[in-house]
Amino acid sequence: MTGPGLDEFALIERLFAPLAKDPGAYGLKDDAATIPSWPGEDLVITKDAMVAGIHFFDSDPPDLIARKLVRVNLSDLAAKGAVPRAYLLDLMLPKTVTENWIGEFARGLALDQEEYGVQLIGGDTDATPGPVAIAITAFGEVATGSMVRRRGARAGDAIFVTGTIGDSALGAEVLRGALAGVEPVAANFLVGRYRLPQPRAALGPRLIGLASSAIDVSDGLVADLRHVCEASGLVSIVEAARVPLSAAARTVLAASPAHLAAVLTGGDDYEILFTAPPTAADKLAPLSQALDVTITEIGRMRSPSNATEDRVTVLDHNGLLIPIRRGGWTHF
Amino acid sequence: MTGPGLDEFALIERLFAPLAKDPGAYGLKDDAATIPSWPGEDLVITKDAMVAGIHFFDSDPPDLIARKLVRVNLSDLAAKGAVPRAYLLDLMLPKTVTENWIGEFARGLALDQEEYGVQLIGGDTDATPGPVAIAITAFGEVATGSMVRRRGARAGDAIFVTGTIGDSALGAEVLRGALAGVEPVAANFLVGRYRLPQPRAALGPRLIGLASSAIDVSDGLVADLRHVCEASGLVSIVEAARVPLSAAARTVLAASPAHLAAVLTGGDDYEILFTAPPTAADKLAPLSQALDVTITEIGRMRSPSNATEDRVTVLDHNGLLIPIRRGGWTHF
Repeated sequence: MTGPGLDEFALIERLFAPLAKDPGAYGLKDDAATIPSWPGEDLVITKDAMVAGIHFFDSDPPDLIARKLVRVNLSDLAAKGAVPRAYLLDLMLPKTVTENWIGEFARGLALDQEEYGVQLIGGDTDATPGPVAIAITAFGEVATGSMVRRRGARAGDAIFVTGTIGDSALGAEVLRGALAGVEPVAANFLVGRYRLPQPRAALGPRLIGLASSAIDVSDGLVADLRHVCEASGLVSIVEAARVPLSAAARTVLAASPAHLAAVLTGGDDYEILFTAPPTAADKLAPLSQALDVTITEIGRMRSPSNATEDRVTVLDHNGLLIPIRRGGWTHF
Repeated sequence: MTGPGLDEFALIERLFAPLAKDPGAYGLKDDAATIPSWPGEDLVITKDAMVAGIHFFDSDPPDLIARKLVRVNLSDLAAKGAVPRAYLLDLMLPKTVTENWIGEFARGLALDQEEYGVQLIGGDTDATPGPVAIAITAFGEVATGSMVRRRGARAGDAIFVTGTIGDSALGAEVLRGALAGVEPVAANFLVGRYRLPQPRAALGPRLIGLASSAIDVSDGLVADLRHVCEASGLVSIVEAARVPLSAAARTVLAASPAHLAAVLTGGDDYEILFTAPPTAADKLAPLSQALDVTITEIGRMRSPSNATEDRVTVLDHNGLLIPIRRGGWTHF
């Protein structure tokens, strides 16, 4: 570490080497890591970064920051149908970061390595004059050629989403003090969903052969569905009333309907949004039950009727258009 | 790009998608990249970052910054014996960066993709309040289990180094205006070595089976040899007079002997430092000739005689100790 006034090698040895027991990590003592080839598999590679003040709060517990970083990357792998395998960790730390902070961060990594069966195999540590910036490059595997793409949705496909949507965006609002009226149990639930997403790691690989396209919901339901539509050359219709909500989110929306914007566009959900023929519902139901993950149909894919048509149309419970624009809502 | 006031998708499409023709890049339009497994091969993964003001000058031409970034990573792969294959690119750019700068940067990537047969397969673009920070994660391959390690040197092994040492450190001195007396031809040569290293990509894979350990010279000859010694549990003796120098570096040292410190500890050489039994010289000579890369023996590995012995001992032409310390020289 050229970094925060700590000795790089001693710190790596003490805190991170115990996380890197995979032989391909070489104990974090070489210039490279290796992943052995698995015949018949493609290695799937994804990367997500988080920056303090943008993707998490400075006051968030460091173990939860670490686990969220692991999980947002595992969520990407899950949406691509990949089984997680290993990861590289990049830490850019200001001098103000304490050894205790890094220790708690490493403890969070250890917990999620255990939970998801992944191993640290390498990384980087650097000083930064800016805020804490951390990134993981995650490696997973799928059978050759079977990665689930953004592209691939067909007109007439149903649009499905796992879990519930909007909890994380509302949790961030709670942390900003913008939802003062929410009762403590609901507030804690929402903050928990913001701080510790539940990547659908077990479900993702089971979607291969069922889903025609998939993406994880990180930018927001509308924005990520738009990505799928653009990649697939289609448009989509979403029925807002079918978007799955937690009890806590329903309570917030009952008191403050305007927060529907945060739910549909806020992001940070780390659920899987995918398309499949409507007949796939028969196969999805037992999967949902076996893995204890709700899967909800929220709309349909359509061929565009003209070149200027919005990629994503959201309808209210009366079938009326809810006007939206990129990155947010105009009004209700 | 959440970044420098440019539209991320348009920019990626226009400048970077043409660099990502590998099928596993999915035209940079999905959430992940894939690398198919090659039975019998290990994937070798390495990462190096560069930050403006630390690893390059703000005034350096952006195409050369890009090429240096590619090359420092290919140098790591070469030292591990790996054949380069693909890379991920991370750009953290301040708002002051122009589209023209990024265009020139992309042009530099294209040149080196052609030269070294590698392809962009994915990456990240983000805004930063700090200086330009760029990183590449490079992927290469070696036959299963054959990556050349830092660890593995044996007592009695000869220490070899490719090319010439110190040019880059002296080139940086030229750019800082600290070597005013050097004639223009020599100055240009040294600056060129600083800006555009020559990774030993062809030689590296040929060292498998010959080298007992290897590292690329990035931190400095002494520091990187120390890494090999620590990993191998040995000490080393280097004869300063045998360290290969370019004509330009010899001219500088003749006028200013104190610059030997910069040569031996300055780093940024991106040559391969490796150990091998002295008898390997017979096999290295034809390899050196075939690939037009000089390979010079500069010292020997030894067993430590006591626990406090310096890992690296440098002797002058009279066999007298040149006192050094971590990160620099005490005096001459």
